[in-house]
Amino acid sequence: MIAAELSSGLSGPLLQLEQQILRSQQPIEHWLRTHWLEHETPFYASVDLRNSGFKLAPVDTNLFPGGFNNLKPDFLPLCVQAVMAAVQKLCPDAKGVLLVPESHTRNQFYLQNVVQLQTILRMAGMKVRVGTLIPEITAPTQLDLASGAKLTLEPLVRRGNRIGLQDFDPCVALLNNDLSAGIPEILENLEQRVIPPLFAGWATRRKSRHFGAYSRVAADFARLVDIDPWLIDPYFGVCGEINFQERTGEECLAGWVDVILGKVRAKYKEYGIDREPFAIVKADAGTYGMGIMTVKDPADVRDLNRKQRTKMAVVKEGLSVTDVLVQEGVYTFETVKDAVAEPVIYMIDQFVVGGFYRVHTGRGPDENLNAPGMHFEPMPFDTCCLLPDPEASPDCAVNRMYAYGVIARLALAAASLELEEMAVEYEAQAERMRKLA
Amino acid sequence: MIAAELSSGLSGPLLQLEQQILRSQQPIEHWLRTHWLEHETPFYASVDLRNSGFKLAPVDTNLFPGGFNNLKPDFLPLCVQAVMAAVQKLCPDAKGVLLVPESHTRNQFYLQNVVQLQTILRMAGMKVRVGTLIPEITAPTQLDLASGAKLTLEPLVRRGNRIGLQDFDPCVALLNNDLSAGIPEILENLEQRVIPPLFAGWATRRKSRHFGAYSRVAADFARLVDIDPWLIDPYFGVCGEINFQERTGEECLAGWVDVILGKVRAKYKEYGIDREPFAIVKADAGTYGMGIMTVKDPADVRDLNRKQRTKMAVVKEGLSVTDVLVQEGVYTFETVKDAVAEPVIYMIDQFVVGGFYRVHTGRGPDENLNAPGMHFEPMPFDTCCLLPDPEASPDCAVNRMYAYGVIARLALAAASLELEEMAVEYEAQAERMRKLA
Repeated sequence: MIAAELSSGLSGPLLQLEQQILRSQQPIEHWLRTHWLEHETPFYASVDLRNSGFKLAPVDTNLFPGGFNNLKPDFLPLCVQAVMAAVQKLCPDAKGVLLVPESHTRNQFYLQNVVQLQTILRMAGMKVRVGTLIPEITAPTQLDLASGAKLTLEPLVRRGNRIGLQDFDPCVALLNNDLSAGIPEILENLEQRVIPPLFAGWATRRKSRHFGAYSRVAADFARLVDIDPWLIDPYFGVCGEINFQERTGEECLAGWVDVILGKVRAKYKEYGIDREPFAIVKADAGTYGMGIMTVKDPADVRDLNRKQRTKMAVVKEGLSVTDVLVQEGVYTFETVKDAVAEPVIYMIDQFVVGGFYRVHTGRGPDENLNAPGMHFEPMPFDTCCLLPDPEASPDCAVNRMYAYGVIARLALAAASLELEEMAVEYEAQAERMRKLA
Repeated sequence: MIAAELSSGLSGPLLQLEQQILRSQQPIEHWLRTHWLEHETPFYASVDLRNSGFKLAPVDTNLFPGGFNNLKPDFLPLCVQAVMAAVQKLCPDAKGVLLVPESHTRNQFYLQNVVQLQTILRMAGMKVRVGTLIPEITAPTQLDLASGAKLTLEPLVRRGNRIGLQDFDPCVALLNNDLSAGIPEILENLEQRVIPPLFAGWATRRKSRHFGAYSRVAADFARLVDIDPWLIDPYFGVCGEINFQERTGEECLAGWVDVILGKVRAKYKEYGIDREPFAIVKADAGTYGMGIMTVKDPADVRDLNRKQRTKMAVVKEGLSVTDVLVQEGVYTFETVKDAVAEPVIYMIDQFVVGGFYRVHTGRGPDENLNAPGMHFEPMPFDTCCLLPDPEASPDCAVNRMYAYGVIARLALAAASLELEEMAVEYEAQAERMRKLA
């Protein structure tokens, strides 16, 4: 078992924050229950956290989590139980589930994730088949994974307003594809329920909207547990109409970098933190850690060389970057075997069902770890993040994990608000379209 | 790890039944989901099963389960998650829970169960305190358990229509007391929600009503998975106005024993089972394995000696027996270390959260095992009963446990119907009372 160590010398304030979270467990769980009475829970999500010792915050919320294969087998029963609860709420009548994964078939790790998702759904009593968007797959194709598992990908078949496979008419389509390449026509206007909704994909989703919702959630939560919301919420700003190649919009970026570094500097001073503030500049839409850079000076975004500009201009699936998020950088001072690490928390329905560490041996505590060369390490304990031990010291692993589970669930709560807001907007747009037609 | 062995030579039909259950996993889970859409799930329950190799059936459903301490620590996260789901459904606004346990404070095992329940509820984010009905406890009393755990019992305090403790006004009262001694006045007409409802206690509950509901559930289920309902449902009959001491009602008992043994004999013949049929005679209300006897001939209930009559006449808390259930006996051919064993399955909300074996070294496969001298052994695997492995052989431990979890959940479904029926009746009675008043 690998013990992740928090190697910050600044552990004081974190312990305070964790103590506050542990002490407030009852109001926190009550607050979350109340939230889930009023808002629909996303089917699943994963949240990347950064723990700087003085601050614990989410930096990315993935609505199409792709690392179920990285969870320890111990977490499987929790996943199955949570899927049962989710299905009971979202689509109790569903028997058949069409799982639509990402189209990069060569990534063995990702394919393992698809196998694992299929296993979880099957153990929860669903009939699951995998329908792929890969145009080259025109007949059921069995992949033999390196692990020994087998995965059958089948071509999607559209019949009227229903999506399915050759001889499979599912009740619900579960997306594990973040739609970076846009919304495929074959998935539009379906009469079946699509989970998460199509607009949750990166074709339309914006990180700024998520973190806007998160700021509201964090403010509420901070009031509840009586902390400075900054301790769990990174500052951010957003610039539209950026063109890295043509170097337009750089002034907006530099302006936000300046504002955010200034605000962080003030907070570091307030808390006596002797660190250099930094900001992360990343595409407002998109994922896979592309188009991400660390900046410590507004000049950094003005003086991009050609290579940097090319890197920033495009994310996954060639999606070009026009909207850019500037976010306060949160140091991660957790390490696994001396390599920099950040926790990734997995949730199904309203429940934390597991987690692991993303580890990068070639990166520093102020850099994005979601990059080639990363690997994953299991969480250093057997039970799950849900189980705080009031008898143990607040900085023991189990209690640290409870705090992680709480912050991850706040990001999940933010995602629910974000998706609601988008649903209202897309409904209004559709209404306008109908009137024009 | 202890492997329970099924030592029956008659494993053929069981494998068939299990195969049928495994093969029907998707319709079964769908059927259960649909059931829980229409009926309120009991907060918790445990079910005693008997597995004769040719038949797998529940023989007792406990709505106030008292053995959470016997579950392996591995099951704790599942318990916590299930409590979170139950609270979200039943009483999302609850923060404080008053746990009302049994009054026999000397049983260290039972006290451990109370501690464990308190831990589970606390880990789920509830504020829990324990209010006792023991009249001698007039101030908070800390018990130091043999395990090292501490348990504080406090006297109940009634204020108007609210129940609580000295400085504790809970949102909900959770009974872990089966009310064999009757419904305590202090718990009547509360404005807080009482879970399970008072009428679920043995003061008013009848096993015959439960098994009547179970027969309906089993018939439905048998149609769903295409089996003979007898394979999962024991025959039963009930006699009222029995007085063991005065020897009235014996003819009714002997009559039912005759009918049931005859029906079982016919089924044994149909399935080529070379065993002697037997019946269990037990109080229709009450628990703790008192007032239970094995009979193989109608004459057995006519020729009771004084000792047997005294034993049958009274169950827990001196409740005298007037209504008697005659139930088809189900052999148990499971053994743990050569001793006769029966599985006990624990559920919270709609989820199987664990189980263990009740083992008795001094009893035979046709006897009640819930008797002094019994002990408990953990289930022989790490993951939970919810996880069938379609790749493994149907008689491997994991798949056997899935079948156990299904049958236990059928008993839970029966309990939900039973409680609904009782709620309607008690509501109608109350209405009549109001009209008379």
